[in-house]
Amino acid sequence: MMMKNNTFEEIAEVLASAGKVLIFPHINADGDAIGSSAALCRALRSLGKECYILIEDEIAGNLKFLDDGLTTSDTGVMKADVSVCVDCGETGRFPLRAEKFAEAPVTVCIDHHETSKGFCTYNHIDPDAAATAQLVFRLIKAMGVEIDKAMGEAVFAGILTDTGSFRYSNTQKETHLIAAELYDSGIDAAGVAQEIFETVRIERLLVENRAVETMVTLHGGKAVLAYVTQEMLRETGATMDETEGVVGQLRSIAGVELAVFLKEYAPEEIKVSLRSKKYVDVAKFSSDFNGGGHERAAGFTLRCPIAEAFDRVKEYVSAMPEMK
Amino acid sequence: MMMKNNTFEEIAEVLASAGKVLIFPHINADGDAIGSSAALCRALRSLGKECYILIEDEIAGNLKFLDDGLTTSDTGVMKADVSVCVDCGETGRFPLRAEKFAEAPVTVCIDHHETSKGFCTYNHIDPDAAATAQLVFRLIKAMGVEIDKAMGEAVFAGILTDTGSFRYSNTQKETHLIAAELYDSGIDAAGVAQEIFETVRIERLLVENRAVETMVTLHGGKAVLAYVTQEMLRETGATMDETEGVVGQLRSIAGVELAVFLKEYAPEEIKVSLRSKKYVDVAKFSSDFNGGGHERAAGFTLRCPIAEAFDRVKEYVSAMPEMK
Repeated sequence: MMMKNNTFEEIAEVLASAGKVLIFPHINADGDAIGSSAALCRALRSLGKECYILIEDEIAGNLKFLDDGLTTSDTGVMKADVSVCVDCGETGRFPLRAEKFAEAPVTVCIDHHETSKGFCTYNHIDPDAAATAQLVFRLIKAMGVEIDKAMGEAVFAGILTDTGSFRYSNTQKETHLIAAELYDSGIDAAGVAQEIFETVRIERLLVENRAVETMVTLHGGKAVLAYVTQEMLRETGATMDETEGVVGQLRSIAGVELAVFLKEYAPEEIKVSLRSKKYVDVAKFSSDFNGGGHERAAGFTLRCPIAEAFDRVKEYVSAMPEMK
Repeated sequence: MMMKNNTFEEIAEVLASAGKVLIFPHINADGDAIGSSAALCRALRSLGKECYILIEDEIAGNLKFLDDGLTTSDTGVMKADVSVCVDCGETGRFPLRAEKFAEAPVTVCIDHHETSKGFCTYNHIDPDAAATAQLVFRLIKAMGVEIDKAMGEAVFAGILTDTGSFRYSNTQKETHLIAAELYDSGIDAAGVAQEIFETVRIERLLVENRAVETMVTLHGGKAVLAYVTQEMLRETGATMDETEGVVGQLRSIAGVELAVFLKEYAPEEIKVSLRSKKYVDVAKFSSDFNGGGHERAAGFTLRCPIAEAFDRVKEYVSAMPEMK
């Protein structure tokens, strides 16, 4: 990180002196982006500020419960005194709103991504925070606002999303302490969880099934490969986005160390997702195919038909010495 | 509940004066039964007690990581001064060990089931606790034992299991406060979550697929019905237990209010599971078929072939006025 963080108190003061605030979540917003934005928007309105969440694409179906007159896609809605971007740290994450963002005399960034550049007038970027919603929770308290049920549920939605319901390794002691405090605001935690995790399109279940059916195991079940084709998407009516959970399903199989999932984006454009549980370095695997990623989650693209891609990857996995 | 609870301090004193302790989780033990037992067993051993978890059936594959020389199925392992049953409150839940349990001069029950009868010399039954592991956590502290990593991970496993990873409505503020404290013991929370939730037999995925393929929707997608047959189990190699997640999958579909899942246990023994999201009272549904349950989760048994059972249930759902 290049710059020093501003404190929540400093940012709270900036917001206190503003009359009109626009909040900018990133495109293809997830539960943390929308949850953080919604909590902050409600807090600012409770202080009498005019405030909107400005979006440029549709909110995902399972997040619509967080929006109750908070969002707008009308860039003419106001001339803001302060623009706040949440859960993102560069204008490329809200491309169609970048100009509008810069229009405000003061800008603020609240984010937890390591890659965030601190490009605003005021910045609070904490890569240790499991969710941006945790930072927004602290900011709202610094603003002197009492967290109500709706704000609490928005914060909880952000935390649930980014920690995979408190399962991912980014989850901190602080995450649970905040969750505990949110119960004091009267949140319906189970209701939020149901909205976030139990609003699955039927087409998604169908395409997941089709993908799992293609499963091939290697090394006595320690490696598993599967794929999805454009034809399967057509037949089930699902989108490629809806196959994002498949590689996790493959990895969840008992005894599986390495899960490989091939996605046919176009006839000769195959994206390969890699996941491992404990010891296989998939970043190394990926880099052998000019891809990138982390030790336990990585990916690359192959420019060939799906059948050929599948064979090439299968051959590579078969020969991996660490799987033997 | 018939009797007054003993305090954790009273029970800690009883355990302090014992030399040999046997712990009894219920049959078909889940993560809370095994996690609670493992944490308590480790705590007692750390005090120099001779202690074992006595079991009568095999531990589920995804819970084996909690056992590290703690369990035995040898009833001759010791003559205990104190028998402790955890996560259950009647001898019918450990039938083959009931006699052994009663052999100890003092018995203790730690449980969170409403149906628990308080049948032991000392009892602490708290139906408000999301998991028995929460009670064991408090008991261990009352014993003056510092929770170490292994104990903490066992408690966390219990909580994760019984709260569905902090998603179910039984989750309390207290649940998160305990989870936060467990981080101080150095637990690998993500590792525990991976063991609990990412150790799925491949046969389970296959039978889930087969069951989801039978899906029929009614009332424009507000109701969904599916079934599993003995033939599907044979063909996939799965057990009936491994279909327990299907009704939840069905309910998770966007727009679904009522999920119905029929399980062919025998040619004329069909168990029907019902789940609803928000407004359908499935206890009422179930009682119309002489079954039982709660507003959002209930079930009943039909004594007829699966095809006939499916038709009868489908007809009932089609006619439900609250779905129209």
